[in-house]
Amino acid sequence: MSAPFDPLEFRRALGAFTTGVTIVTARALDGTPVGVTANSFNSVSLSPPMILWSLARSSRSLAAFQSADHWVVHILAADQEALSNRFAKSGEDKFAGLATETGVGAAPLLKDCACRLQCKTAFFKEAGDHVIFVGEVVAFDRRDVPCLVFHAGKYGLATRKTDPSLLSGKGPRESDISYGEDFLGYLLWRADLHFRNRVTPQLNAHGLDRDSFMILAMLMHRDGRSLDRLTFDMLSQFGSQGIRERVAALSGQGWVTAKQQDAASTVWLTDTGRAVALRIHVALQSIEADLLGRLDPTESLAIKHLLRSFIVQTDDGLPHPWQDVT
Amino acid sequence: MSAPFDPLEFRRALGAFTTGVTIVTARALDGTPVGVTANSFNSVSLSPPMILWSLARSSRSLAAFQSADHWVVHILAADQEALSNRFAKSGEDKFAGLATETGVGAAPLLKDCACRLQCKTAFFKEAGDHVIFVGEVVAFDRRDVPCLVFHAGKYGLATRKTDPSLLSGKGPRESDISYGEDFLGYLLWRADLHFRNRVTPQLNAHGLDRDSFMILAMLMHRDGRSLDRLTFDMLSQFGSQGIRERVAALSGQGWVTAKQQDAASTVWLTDTGRAVALRIHVALQSIEADLLGRLDPTESLAIKHLLRSFIVQTDDGLPHPWQDVT
Repeated sequence: MSAPFDPLEFRRALGAFTTGVTIVTARALDGTPVGVTANSFNSVSLSPPMILWSLARSSRSLAAFQSADHWVVHILAADQEALSNRFAKSGEDKFAGLATETGVGAAPLLKDCACRLQCKTAFFKEAGDHVIFVGEVVAFDRRDVPCLVFHAGKYGLATRKTDPSLLSGKGPRESDISYGEDFLGYLLWRADLHFRNRVTPQLNAHGLDRDSFMILAMLMHRDGRSLDRLTFDMLSQFGSQGIRERVAALSGQGWVTAKQQDAASTVWLTDTGRAVALRIHVALQSIEADLLGRLDPTESLAIKHLLRSFIVQTDDGLPHPWQDVT
Repeated sequence: MSAPFDPLEFRRALGAFTTGVTIVTARALDGTPVGVTANSFNSVSLSPPMILWSLARSSRSLAAFQSADHWVVHILAADQEALSNRFAKSGEDKFAGLATETGVGAAPLLKDCACRLQCKTAFFKEAGDHVIFVGEVVAFDRRDVPCLVFHAGKYGLATRKTDPSLLSGKGPRESDISYGEDFLGYLLWRADLHFRNRVTPQLNAHGLDRDSFMILAMLMHRDGRSLDRLTFDMLSQFGSQGIRERVAALSGQGWVTAKQQDAASTVWLTDTGRAVALRIHVALQSIEADLLGRLDPTESLAIKHLLRSFIVQTDDGLPHPWQDVT
């Protein structure tokens, strides 16, 4: 048990409590719009509907909120990080260039939020270095979008925990051999398999395997790569022989063509090759949309964020096919 | 803009705001411990350190909290969902069988939480159908563990958003062809590759490829499968010929053995085979620990949850190797 009076340690302790992020706005008596970022929001009462948030007594906007009859709490969507940062700073015109609507008490309404709660002040009360504002909700609206989360001093996303009863097999939990649904290696393999199983028929319909398609996709991103470069960018997993064979097959289809540049032979997409790659691209986008559509919106955003984070943090220096040649 | 007075719709709107989950405990005047689950917690003041939470006026524990000088807010860790559910119900002895410590004002302290904030009541105030409790923090402690999150009526986890500047290549964001780091198919393939690249040398050292190892792992889970069953459980990706060849190779090593049962030939692990599989298992666990150790604790928990959720929700009926034969 540490003493509570190290402010940094106390902040860190409070950071254990995850919150959403809100911006609270009001109209000052002189007509100026005010707004502050706050994660000290919470619900209070269902009947009547009441909510609260708190504001530092040192805030420039304190007087405006204390004199306003109404204020609006905006719960931010996952893509509103920049808006959150804008309203967290003091001193500039936070509303400059922002399209707003007008809410109760002429309070500015921000757009594209996850939820907006328009309130009539019920009371406010000082507590330490902050003032707690309690309001009665007089109108609200909501959009079904992923929400921004603040945790341990960083922005984040909230994702559902998996319901264990949904899992298919018992494997790992019943024995100490966890190759199964608790083993990341299996989960990655299996998730990739579900995607691959949907993609393969599309590729096969064009006479492609996943690796030939990867070569096409890399050329779509930037063509004119040499065979050596393609081999390197394909992570050398086939050796130059495997790449050469696939390029030869693609060339036989008339989808790529080789040009002699300086000493090296470089590979270019033909118009037909580009058209085929685009057609497959559209099909793959729709497979992705279908699969992600089975998750809830936050999960479908979070799975990409987490995989990217995993990829970045476990990168032992393998080349990236989308990286530009330096 | 909808009217605020549909209680269900209002709850849904409030659900857009993600929160952590807390249990607040106190000691009633008669010595009985009381405790309630609350997500209406928030920080209020840093100097003096103050926090707040609110409790329904209808709660059985209201009188005890109103008469207590002290109470303790426990911010729950990700694995304390059951504890949260226990304290969310009313009417039973919530503390039965729970090991607790004693905090300020004799309030019960629960164990293994992410953070515990011991408070002296500053004041409480009615607001609608709830009472807001504000307390001054007199002691706290904290553990660096993933925290439980409540979002849109469900338990979850908070994960960091990826910093876009960490991403390696520009590919998808610069062109309209997003096979790259914005395309789930690529992300799954690439994340799987990072795992695979670490695992392959371990398997090769035993003369195994990933698929032969998968057969060993499936037999570790339950041996005595027929070749047909193995072919089916391996998702028929090689056809029976591929399975037959791999089983023959494993048998040549003396790691599996075939027995004739009824009409079918079934495959069993030998003692040597089991020992090899266990040795590889230990190596794979340490690879997993190393890779997950590069993420923060919540991310490493969340990536498994999300992959499981993806696997469950995109399951088009492929067999699961860990599934028991029905």
